[in-house]
Amino acid sequence: MDSSKIIVQKYGGTSVKSPERIKAVAERIRSYREKGFSVVVVVSAMGKTTDDLIGLAKQVTQNPSKREMDMLLSTGEQVSCALLAMALHEINIDAVSYTGSQIKMMTDGNFSNAKIAGISTDRIFKSLSDNKVVIIAGFQGIDEDDNITTLGRGGSDTTAVALAAVLKTRDCEIYTDVDGVYTADPRIVSSTRKLKEISYDEMLELARLGAGVLHSRSVEFAKKFNIRVHVRSSFSYDEGTIVMPVEEMMEKFIISGITSKQDEAKVTIREIPDKPGISARLFNELGKEKIYVNMIVQSTGQDNRASISFTVKKEDLKKTMEICTELNKEFGGTSVDSKENIAIVSAVGVGMLSSYGVAGKIFGVFSDQNINIEMISTSEIGISCVIDSIYAELALKILHKTFVDAE
Amino acid sequence: MDSSKIIVQKYGGTSVKSPERIKAVAERIRSYREKGFSVVVVVSAMGKTTDDLIGLAKQVTQNPSKREMDMLLSTGEQVSCALLAMALHEINIDAVSYTGSQIKMMTDGNFSNAKIAGISTDRIFKSLSDNKVVIIAGFQGIDEDDNITTLGRGGSDTTAVALAAVLKTRDCEIYTDVDGVYTADPRIVSSTRKLKEISYDEMLELARLGAGVLHSRSVEFAKKFNIRVHVRSSFSYDEGTIVMPVEEMMEKFIISGITSKQDEAKVTIREIPDKPGISARLFNELGKEKIYVNMIVQSTGQDNRASISFTVKKEDLKKTMEICTELNKEFGGTSVDSKENIAIVSAVGVGMLSSYGVAGKIFGVFSDQNINIEMISTSEIGISCVIDSIYAELALKILHKTFVDAE
Repeated sequence: MDSSKIIVQKYGGTSVKSPERIKAVAERIRSYREKGFSVVVVVSAMGKTTDDLIGLAKQVTQNPSKREMDMLLSTGEQVSCALLAMALHEINIDAVSYTGSQIKMMTDGNFSNAKIAGISTDRIFKSLSDNKVVIIAGFQGIDEDDNITTLGRGGSDTTAVALAAVLKTRDCEIYTDVDGVYTADPRIVSSTRKLKEISYDEMLELARLGAGVLHSRSVEFAKKFNIRVHVRSSFSYDEGTIVMPVEEMMEKFIISGITSKQDEAKVTIREIPDKPGISARLFNELGKEKIYVNMIVQSTGQDNRASISFTVKKEDLKKTMEICTELNKEFGGTSVDSKENIAIVSAVGVGMLSSYGVAGKIFGVFSDQNINIEMISTSEIGISCVIDSIYAELALKILHKTFVDAE
Repeated sequence: MDSSKIIVQKYGGTSVKSPERIKAVAERIRSYREKGFSVVVVVSAMGKTTDDLIGLAKQVTQNPSKREMDMLLSTGEQVSCALLAMALHEINIDAVSYTGSQIKMMTDGNFSNAKIAGISTDRIFKSLSDNKVVIIAGFQGIDEDDNITTLGRGGSDTTAVALAAVLKTRDCEIYTDVDGVYTADPRIVSSTRKLKEISYDEMLELARLGAGVLHSRSVEFAKKFNIRVHVRSSFSYDEGTIVMPVEEMMEKFIISGITSKQDEAKVTIREIPDKPGISARLFNELGKEKIYVNMIVQSTGQDNRASISFTVKKEDLKKTMEICTELNKEFGGTSVDSKENIAIVSAVGVGMLSSYGVAGKIFGVFSDQNINIEMISTSEIGISCVIDSIYAELALKILHKTFVDAE
């Protein structure tokens, strides 16, 4: 089969939330068929189905087995793919739905967060050559013992990109409830604009910063296999944002997105001996408790003593403080304190790679507004600053004005 | 494994209709484990789930593909088996749930009404020997191309009995919303009583007469493999009714059940030539339209002319009359007429096999009440009479009094 005529499309929960929306999706698929495409569709569960199923499980047990949760949750996608097949039949388009098991979407056995190990394309190619639309339940797979697994929240994006990779298509469309990737949250910054293009690394950085429209693993997959991912809305026919290799981008902004998140808290351990092994010990202990640490800054003070500051999710703060207080005694530090009212404001852009002085310019902007920067961390394509949360909105707006509106 | 220590239990939709009911089922399973049983459980979809899913499909299309309906409906049982596994884990009983696909419940490819072709016991025996409760999604299987199939309404009963057969257990418990099989509908006959035992053939006859508690195919399976099926309620610990081989029954009543149904209409074609091929032609034409004919009576009149009366479902009456009117012209009969206000009152009992004069006694009872019998048909273990529907309740009560209360 000519892979250039195959398109993979993924429709998220809001796009298939009702029988009416499912029929609208069928019409959209028809328009692609009329353009000569063979269509492979990945669907999520309808609307709030996954949450409803989780709610049912919670009524049975507070601590459900992950294997059984995957058994439970995988039904949501199975329902929507059967309904979409019916909607296509209704408008005289031949279509067939498959579960993850039926197309041998093989994963490891890590229930609730499984990784794709391989996909058999035989059945998909056979159905496509029979002129059928192939509809695949997203989010799910099976392990080598035929247990049902799921890929974690948002995993249907990964299903779609992985299918694009094995079917060797160049393009994958992800239909979601937003119409693309914006330079900032439109609810806060009125001058925000939709990006036509964004690189894989910027998209990953945005996902890490909580502003991601896509499941990070799907972006990693897209990067690895060079898939162009078109993020767009199923409620309009407007173009969205294409996530693509940086080399192919037509225009590269120094900064393509500004984000702000307030779901983390800062912890500081003061004046502990600055000797090897201390940090390793601290972060290993946190890792054992599955506490995810985001930003880390270590400063050297006097008398060979250092302070370490880092951020964790607010829900992990209590546990983190217990661990740190215990370790602080052992290390002989002076104190452990925490701050919850912080915001992490970040600027992301591939242009930073080739542009000097971006960090300095950002610090200047903050200084002009008398905003104190409590922590700074940088990556090749991003700068994050921890500031007091009362300045979060101001910082977002002023950075957007300085870097995005000005471009 | 010692099959005599394995019990197969099936819990119907009302038994698992809510998280609370599912927890109650888990407790019941615990009580069997404590008695030393290895438990294999078959579950139906929760409460009205199947109807809800059918409703969703109807909103998408009036004419859903059977393959996709099976894909859709099979999710209901998958949800309840995952939840039951969680409920067992919650009370520290190891359990694992399997879909039809996972235990290779192989069927033919007749979607929506598939027949079981074979079941692999490897995975079930393995899990039982690991001391797990094995929970299996009822109603579903897969065909040889790995498509999901369903066994038709009530098919979970068949799943359970088929499992009892392949696991070579003697007993299968079917938990339902009634606590057994009664001699008549308790809503009409107050003196009705629960039968301790009933034979396979009586149960099949009752199912045909619309008074069946079990899916007929499950009873055929039970008969074929000699499985004792215990029909009982999940809302109490009382004994229900055991469906068993007639030879093993302790007491055989002449009549074990009286039923009445009013969902059929009578059609009569009068004075058509009494020659070979006429009836065949008539019922073949009806068969082509998938119209199910229940009772048939042919009477010979004068001049080599005969009348044929038969009953069909009321919803098929219009179509039936169209076909009969057309054929009547061709046959040269005098008229076609129909009557909707009829009742089919039946008496069922294995005792009839060895008891003379039951039919005569029934006719006498009707005659005493001036109830006119419009059609009669008999089988080895049953007699059915068509009467005017105004006498339905009276007939049921008087037959029950004469044959059941008197025993």
